[in-house]
Amino acid sequence: MDQWNERVRPNRLEKRFEFKDYEATREFLDKLGRLSEENNKFPDISFGKTYVNLTLMPDSDANDAMPSDSDKEFASKIDLLVD
Amino acid sequence: MDQWNERVRPNRLEKRFEFKDYEATREFLDKLGRLSEENNKFPDISFGKTYVNLTLMPDSDANDAMPSDSDKEFASKIDLLVD
Repeated sequence: MDQWNERVRPNRLEKRFEFKDYEATREFLDKLGRLSEENNKFPDISFGKTYVNLTLMPDSDANDAMPSDSDKEFASKIDLLVD
Repeated sequence: MDQWNERVRPNRLEKRFEFKDYEATREFLDKLGRLSEENNKFPDISFGKTYVNLTLMPDSDANDAMPSDSDKEFASKIDLLVD
């Protein structure tokens, strides 16, 4: 499975997911919505008919804030949503 | 109600919607998902916990393609999703 990319300024985790059709995209987004509520983490999400781009920002606004272990754990849980 | 902004290069319709909490955001996205399927139009969507940004691109990839009447009609239908 493709890895999450760790970006800097601001530090963040990013990943693109692609799907075969709109139904699969919506199914992923629905699961992700439930996971977000369970974990109280709300990534920035961009999506179209067959793709979803996710960005996880550090909880802190500090310039040098890094993705926390809990962010990375949340990213792993997102990966598990995909069959 | 705020208007949709018409942008150029590429020509597109854009609008930002803000919501009081994540539940209201999700509710809007669910309605928008059903509306997209009914109309077979799939805008580019960016969202976070309490906002949704929508971009409607012309169906044609031509450089000078303009938002069509059906795009504008779809935009009006989206506005009606918000209470």
